[in-house]
Amino acid sequence: MDRTSIGVGLIGCGTVGTGVLRLLSHEDEIRARVGCSLRVHKIAVRDLEAERDDVVDKSLLTTSVSDVLTHPEIDVVVEVMGGIEPARRVVADALKHGKQVVTANKALLAAHGDVLLSYADQHDLDLMFEASVAGGIPVIRALRSSLASDRVQSIHGIINGTSNYVLTEVEQSGASLDEVVKEAQKLGYAEADPSADVDGFDAAAKLQILMCLAFGTSVTQATPEVRSIVPLCSIDFEYARSFGYRIKPLAVARKDGDQIEAWVGPALVPEEHVLAGVSGVYNACYLNSQAVGPLLFYGQGAGMMATAVSVVADVIDTSRNLIAGATGRRQPAAETGASILVVDSGRSARPHYLRLTVEDRPGVLGRIATALGAHQISIQSLVQDDHRPNTNAEIMILTHDVLGSDVMKAVAEIDRSADVRAATLVLPIEDPERA
Amino acid sequence: MDRTSIGVGLIGCGTVGTGVLRLLSHEDEIRARVGCSLRVHKIAVRDLEAERDDVVDKSLLTTSVSDVLTHPEIDVVVEVMGGIEPARRVVADALKHGKQVVTANKALLAAHGDVLLSYADQHDLDLMFEASVAGGIPVIRALRSSLASDRVQSIHGIINGTSNYVLTEVEQSGASLDEVVKEAQKLGYAEADPSADVDGFDAAAKLQILMCLAFGTSVTQATPEVRSIVPLCSIDFEYARSFGYRIKPLAVARKDGDQIEAWVGPALVPEEHVLAGVSGVYNACYLNSQAVGPLLFYGQGAGMMATAVSVVADVIDTSRNLIAGATGRRQPAAETGASILVVDSGRSARPHYLRLTVEDRPGVLGRIATALGAHQISIQSLVQDDHRPNTNAEIMILTHDVLGSDVMKAVAEIDRSADVRAATLVLPIEDPERA
Repeated sequence: MDRTSIGVGLIGCGTVGTGVLRLLSHEDEIRARVGCSLRVHKIAVRDLEAERDDVVDKSLLTTSVSDVLTHPEIDVVVEVMGGIEPARRVVADALKHGKQVVTANKALLAAHGDVLLSYADQHDLDLMFEASVAGGIPVIRALRSSLASDRVQSIHGIINGTSNYVLTEVEQSGASLDEVVKEAQKLGYAEADPSADVDGFDAAAKLQILMCLAFGTSVTQATPEVRSIVPLCSIDFEYARSFGYRIKPLAVARKDGDQIEAWVGPALVPEEHVLAGVSGVYNACYLNSQAVGPLLFYGQGAGMMATAVSVVADVIDTSRNLIAGATGRRQPAAETGASILVVDSGRSARPHYLRLTVEDRPGVLGRIATALGAHQISIQSLVQDDHRPNTNAEIMILTHDVLGSDVMKAVAEIDRSADVRAATLVLPIEDPERA
Repeated sequence: MDRTSIGVGLIGCGTVGTGVLRLLSHEDEIRARVGCSLRVHKIAVRDLEAERDDVVDKSLLTTSVSDVLTHPEIDVVVEVMGGIEPARRVVADALKHGKQVVTANKALLAAHGDVLLSYADQHDLDLMFEASVAGGIPVIRALRSSLASDRVQSIHGIINGTSNYVLTEVEQSGASLDEVVKEAQKLGYAEADPSADVDGFDAAAKLQILMCLAFGTSVTQATPEVRSIVPLCSIDFEYARSFGYRIKPLAVARKDGDQIEAWVGPALVPEEHVLAGVSGVYNACYLNSQAVGPLLFYGQGAGMMATAVSVVADVIDTSRNLIAGATGRRQPAAETGASILVVDSGRSARPHYLRLTVEDRPGVLGRIATALGAHQISIQSLVQDDHRPNTNAEIMILTHDVLGSDVMKAVAEIDRSADVRAATLVLPIEDPERA
């Protein structure tokens, strides 16, 4: 189809939306790369009077979402409002109006992706979401297209920039996690309510999207186990290093036959592994596939322009599809994973790191070691740290291979003993190269 | 268009071709991801009697290329024969017969890419080449699609696995480069004639392809400066490390206005940079873009299956295009770079590493330092090593920022003096984060 322009409508005009408009303003380059120009016709916002960047053409603003969804010249709707409702309704309505949709909304996909994706698929519409995982890093495209003939075996992601920033700062400054989160909030790296980031729900939603593409699981139903980074403190990073590890906020999915072990949370990674060096706000995705072997993607996982580049890449791709009359091209692995079971990390044997806070008195260490032994938990290393100015001591333990569920059972019992003064921290040790 | 199968023909059935057949044999997965099955109809080979893997259906073999190119049921021709001729004629003829073409042949693209790509473009045909650069790493797709709205500013690649393997081995074993190349030939990591790899021509061809996509330069005309890794020896790695650097076989393209500095060769990289850790046969591509910032792609740059996955990803993409009736979609930046000038590394100021082999007698070091000073080359560090069992000494020098062309002029003069016993080695110091 010969076209002189493709119409774009935005729902939302916050940070990412403004970034999208800035990129679309490079009109000559866009035209050369799409084959026709992309023209923004309408931008739906909540507040017409809010202060906005110069790149936002105020004459296009409207408070009515349906002005965008029903606009006859708008072909592509870009949803950058965030949140689950009303974003779900907006995306569903846009598809019902026959619009191609680009979204950066991982929470929406994790909650309602199955219905939305299958509607788009049935109606030959594009529903694209590169920016929903790892900001500017094109890992969605890699899974959807580059690895289409391969069999992905495992995914190891550092896909929440806030928690990676927080852990890196705790490690480097020795400050408490609480202090660092407050500082991150001041810097704009953490939300007023940091729970989605630090407790792992944001990374879990992104992992659901990656698993859907890699393994064909349901994006909505296949949910990973989630652990928070909140219980960590700087001493954990010191001892992890002394044992030869770094602590990273991982999102892990590992396929074994018809089972996928999937979890999100802080874990110890061998210090020589490439993921151990991914620090600060950077994101990374490490894939292991049968034919290609290991692949690493690394870059900025968030930020106005990085995210906007991924949104506009999708806008350009769907525009190319529109020009070719070929929207709604098949997603890979969309229907192969129905029988796959998602299990948590407790089912597989691996070493674990434990930090016990105990009363500083003779005999404690022996009793703890004995109790672990009674649960068949074999100790690789054990260090006692009693230099902190209080009456407690801390015992850091590295176990041999042991089931996570067995560790949790043992710890639950040990934590009830009179020696133990606070809940024991348990972290898995995750080697991405382990088969 | 509804299709029950898409026909594929192979030209060549060596290592990569066999890998392609192995992946295509996963019929159910391929069908789920393409939307119809991919069927191989013909495989053109030189020798019908050669021993072949079981995955090769002998009944499909032919020695006649035109059996493939004229086969009515073949939609996609996969060129995995390698070399420039007759591959050029085969690809040109396949396009003339209206076939979509997938190739892994970087030498062909670097020599004749402009003509072939523009023919495909004019006739709405796909000519895809993900496997031509960095094997299984999807950097071509990233440039073509993910970064389509961004402005790439620099490319730093380690895109020749053989030279990276050789340099890593020299660094780790202390053996001579010559010995390591011989060992690599035995292991199958280096060709009988290793020149294309160790002298940089292979990486240069790949860099031409990356520059074409990133900057819109002519793939054929925009050729980088090329330097060999052959003059390096293990002492260079030792001293590079003592200065805080690692030596890596780089391919660099850096845009500055209408100029692109482009070169291939060994260079010193700051040891804390992520590229410094890319070792052995691994490849990496580090892109810096205006909006996305830095992006790293890392993985296996060669090998049967890694390369085959990229070839089959292209076969699947062109098949999806065929089903949608949408082949020949526009390449980005195809016509924007006509006025861009490619310049060599000598035009920009940076620190350099020099190794001088001099007669071991008093006063030499002073005379060398004086001569460099006379050429305005300011020295940051200087180390003399005279522990080797011969009458020569070696002087390792790290300069301050200086034009490469000035260093070469100074060295040419100094090398004529009676003190100097062998050609001086000059390596640039390349910091990928330098603007």
